[in-house]
This record gives sequence, structure tokens and C-alpha cells, in this order.
Amino acid sequence: MAEFAKTEKTEITRLPKRGVYDKDVIYAILDEALVCTVAYVNDGQPFQIPTGFCRIGDKLYLHGSVGSFYMRQLAEKKIPVCISVTLIDGLVLARSAFHHSVNYRSVVLFSNPERVTDDAELYNVLEVFTNKMQPGRWDDVRQPNSGEWKATMVLSFKIEEVSAKVRTGGPKDDDEDYDLNIWAGVVPLKTTRLDPIPDPVLKQGIAIPEYLR
Amino acid sequence: MAEFAKTEKTEITRLPKRGVYDKDVIYAILDEALVCTVAYVNDGQPFQIPTGFCRIGDKLYLHGSVGSFYMRQLAEKKIPVCISVTLIDGLVLARSAFHHSVNYRSVVLFSNPERVTDDAELYNVLEVFTNKMQPGRWDDVRQPNSGEWKATMVLSFKIEEVSAKVRTGGPKDDDEDYDLNIWAGVVPLKTTRLDPIPDPVLKQGIAIPEYLR
Repeated sequence: MAEFAKTEKTEITRLPKRGVYDKDVIYAILDEALVCTVAYVNDGQPFQIPTGFCRIGDKLYLHGSVGSFYMRQLAEKKIPVCISVTLIDGLVLARSAFHHSVNYRSVVLFSNPERVTDDAELYNVLEVFTNKMQPGRWDDVRQPNSGEWKATMVLSFKIEEVSAKVRTGGPKDDDEDYDLNIWAGVVPLKTTRLDPIPDPVLKQGIAIPEYLR
Repeated sequence: MAEFAKTEKTEITRLPKRGVYDKDVIYAILDEALVCTVAYVNDGQPFQIPTGFCRIGDKLYLHGSVGSFYMRQLAEKKIPVCISVTLIDGLVLARSAFHHSVNYRSVVLFSNPERVTDDAELYNVLEVFTNKMQPGRWDDVRQPNSGEWKATMVLSFKIEEVSAKVRTGGPKDDDEDYDLNIWAGVVPLKTTRLDPIPDPVLKQGIAIPEYLR
């Protein structure tokens, strides 16, 4: 079991038993989440951008327009960022208001941006990005043309200083509360993909692809 | 239609047509989302905490342990924070890889923490917090005792410097791509509550409450 090393920034001090440094667990959370939030500092003020992302190996990738102010700031200044991802798995209803909780899996990563300039890496990132959104999609769509490549900026972030925090299971009440006549348990939450809605101007005769059924 | 005033920090410069300053829209996003991420700066370094929250009127509230390092930092230093919330409504599959997108509703708030010390406000926040997680829950559970009150810290953040960003609808492709033989449309995403799972040690004879059916 490979683990990330704890650092001053990633050591979980609040409820440390929920801290997870296992590489497979952290990678699985990153691969399941569709969006992350990127925090950075500008002029002493914290900013946050919610955005899509993907992971390949030990790197997390963001993409955006070359015209995006925050992407340009990150690419040029290579300033430290904090990136977080949160999946909510359930509501934990305890007998006491105090012990209500949430089952979740979150990751917090500290890293610095590197602009990706290698063509093969760029291509690979956009393929993984697209297929993360919908497996099988990349091979089915019109590939980026040269103008679109020029308009796209990709940033990579080494996944090294990172931790996860995970809560699972049922409520934990105070001993004396287990005898109360109060229902307790978990309401699981699940994000599902509903039936695809075709574009109203979809060309006639185009069937829904196999990978979307 | 009441709107928040744009500021240098909240004016949407990238895809400005997605920017929303309408109070009702922003409040509705905040009320639907279960978690937010709180970003703040410590020693020049950005940090992020994913956490539950609730809104009452023009304030956003976080709660946590008085032993939480970040809560204490925020309460004592009253440093500026950036809080974001993101709801993902669908995957937008365009004919071109480049125009793939996501339907989302996000809010970014800039504010400063104030520790809540008024008893009535504290009580109200915890009630709204609990009922946001599960409507009807607060009146059914054991209320906080004095030790639990002392262990809980609540921070309020004025909602004033805030913006939302919203994308809805189908894919927008380049004119010449509409004739391609590629399926395009939206895959809606929905977070649903599954059937409640009773605590394995639930006291015998306790039925599932009406509000959970």
C-alpha cells in the first residue's frame, strides 16, 4: 500500500482518524469527482474557481481558455494553489443533533502549476478529460483543430503534498442516547446520470451512441 | 429583482453572460448545496476546507468544533475568506471535443468571519443546519446540552460581495459542425436520496419517521 508522506500542511489534526494518505484511495476520489475547486492567493486575498479536471498518473490537470485571467495568472506566476474535491455519500442522522454528520470523501492537494506544452501530453490530457466526462466520447467527436489547440491552455499539478478525509458508516451517539426513542441511521446520496436529452437541432437519423445507453 | 452589486472581485470576466447577481438565484443555489469550500490564506499559502453550511437571510453560517484550528483562526483573525459552492446539473456533449461543457450553478462569495455569540442566533443556526440536512429532523432529536453548546463554534459571513455563474441548455457547436454525423445533447445529472438505512443498533420498535418516507 503506497502512501503519500504527511507534511505540515496535509496532516489532519481535526478528527485525525478520518485522514487517509493511501494513493489508491486518493486517486479513486479524484477520478470519480467531476469538479474541483482551485484556491489561490492574489494580493493577499483568497480566490476560488470551481472547474473540471482530470488525473493522469501522479498529475492533476486543469484546462481552460488562454484568455482566462486566472489560468494566465497561474501559468505565469506558478503560484501555490490548494485544490479540493468533495464527494458526499450520505447524511448521517444521529439521535442527538450534535452528532449529525455527513459521509464524505474529500481530497485536498497543495501544488504549483506547470503549463503543459508537450503536444503528446496535451493531446492525452484532452482525451482523458473528454472520456472522464463520458467514457467512449473522444473517439466519436470532432477532434480539436489547430485554432482550438491554440486557444486551450492546460496546467499540470504534481500530486505529492496531498491528503484525503473520509467518513463512512452509521451515526456515533453518546452511550446514554442509544436508549432514546429516536430513529437513527444513514440516508445515502447518489448522483445518477439520467436519460440523455438529444440536442433539439440534432441532425436527423443520428441514433444515440452505444456508450450512452 | 434585487441584485448584488458587482465589485472588482465578483465581476465575471470569463464568459460574462454566465454571470448572475440576482439575489433569489444566488440564495437558491446556496440553499440547495449541502457543502461549500472555504478558502483562506495563512502565511501567504492558500488553504481550503470542504464543510457543511447553511444560509439564513443575508448571512452564510459555518459551524465546527471550538477545537478546530481553522475555525479558531477565522474567528480570531477575522481574515478574508472566499467561499464557493457548485452544483452540477448535466454533461454537455457537443459535436466537437472543444465545445464539450458542463451545466452547472456555482456561487463565489467574498466575506469575513464573525463569531456568533448571541444565544438565540446560535440556536436558530443549528436548527436550520439540521433541518437543511433533513427537513423535520430538528424537532425529532435530542437537542444540544450545555457541554455541546460550549463545544460548538458558529461563524457568520455577510452575503454581500457575491456572484453566481450558471450554464444551462444544450451544446453550442460551430456552425459548420451541425451537419456532422455525431450525436449531441445533454446527460442530466441528479443527486437523489436513497432509502434510509437504519442504524444496526437502532432500538427495537422505532419506526422510520414520516419525514423520511
